[in-house]
Amino acid sequence: MTGDAPHGPASPTIEFWFEFGSNYSYLAVMRIEEEAARYGVRIVWKPFLLGPILRALGMETSPFVLHKQKGAYVWRDMARQCAKYGLPWTQPSAFPRLAILPMRVALLGAGQPWMGAFCRRTMELNFVLDRDINQSEPIAAILIDLNLPASDLLAQAQAEPTKTRLRQQTEEAQARGIFGAPTFFVGAEMFWGNDRLDDALHWAVDQKQE
Amino acid sequence: MTGDAPHGPASPTIEFWFEFGSNYSYLAVMRIEEEAARYGVRIVWKPFLLGPILRALGMETSPFVLHKQKGAYVWRDMARQCAKYGLPWTQPSAFPRLAILPMRVALLGAGQPWMGAFCRRTMELNFVLDRDINQSEPIAAILIDLNLPASDLLAQAQAEPTKTRLRQQTEEAQARGIFGAPTFFVGAEMFWGNDRLDDALHWAVDQKQE
Repeated sequence: MTGDAPHGPASPTIEFWFEFGSNYSYLAVMRIEEEAARYGVRIVWKPFLLGPILRALGMETSPFVLHKQKGAYVWRDMARQCAKYGLPWTQPSAFPRLAILPMRVALLGAGQPWMGAFCRRTMELNFVLDRDINQSEPIAAILIDLNLPASDLLAQAQAEPTKTRLRQQTEEAQARGIFGAPTFFVGAEMFWGNDRLDDALHWAVDQKQE
Repeated sequence: MTGDAPHGPASPTIEFWFEFGSNYSYLAVMRIEEEAARYGVRIVWKPFLLGPILRALGMETSPFVLHKQKGAYVWRDMARQCAKYGLPWTQPSAFPRLAILPMRVALLGAGQPWMGAFCRRTMELNFVLDRDINQSEPIAAILIDLNLPASDLLAQAQAEPTKTRLRQQTEEAQARGIFGAPTFFVGAEMFWGNDRLDDALHWAVDQKQE
């Protein structure tokens, strides 16, 4: 260690692959900035679409919908996990919600200082306020609240290059062996699920020290 | 609290549903006695057969075999989890291993002082020594090492009443909504996976204090 800035280019790094429709991604989105800061790890945000990944695995929708017993368990687990982490929680009346528009906005936000706040607000829309998240109006309202140029960002989000990038990032997720969300990578090391966030951050710090 | 013995009838209790063929049950079997003692929680051991549960959900074998990408991940996850907990680990050359004989012995051991040691030794046979666990010889060797009447226990394990009890306990697992192993119950509250063992123990203690 030669006096790197805490989040300089040589900081340990974690890739965070997530989906706004995914309930366990909600837990990770709400926690990751605070946890990563505690470990001194830089976050590389990687929004991707879970739907095409699940369809390639033969699932037409979330396994929590297809698999009734696991689904019933998951909502109880979510209520308990949110209580444990001190997070608000409302079981969404529609699940899984389409999230293509906010995922495209998130692609534009990755690397920007507003990314964490935008993602938390979008997740709260889905899993606390129980609102549709694939509409311009509520997403614009979040961007405006964050003092961002909402109509410019929404136009850019819906332009062809952003659509293409989201498709490519989803293909990359599939190529890397991702089968669910959230997923974390530290180098080639993959960690699946909010339950592995701390292990992944430990790994990032240990790697850095080697 | 009126001076109960630490593990008296009024102690907080956790039901531990597990399978010797299940790799995440390995982690929980190796950890549970120490963890439960730390919390002052009594363990009710509930061996059951995972195969019939999975078949009822439309899976002919473990999802880690059926689902190639998740399977590849799981073996890496197991190696890391074992390193984290300080447990030995060998990826078994056959998976999932049939465990009907040792599950029947475990039914006889539930409630006996030798249960924890027997379960750990059987799990080590599968996930450390990479040996077949559904044979009389290695199971007898474990029982003899524990100073138990091996041939009496094996005869009783293979007698009709024990076979029936294991079938019934598996049906009970299914009726309670169990879809994987390990699963913990604290009263009616279900916790799935080794990752939830500590949450379940916390819950047991909190329930008791109410």
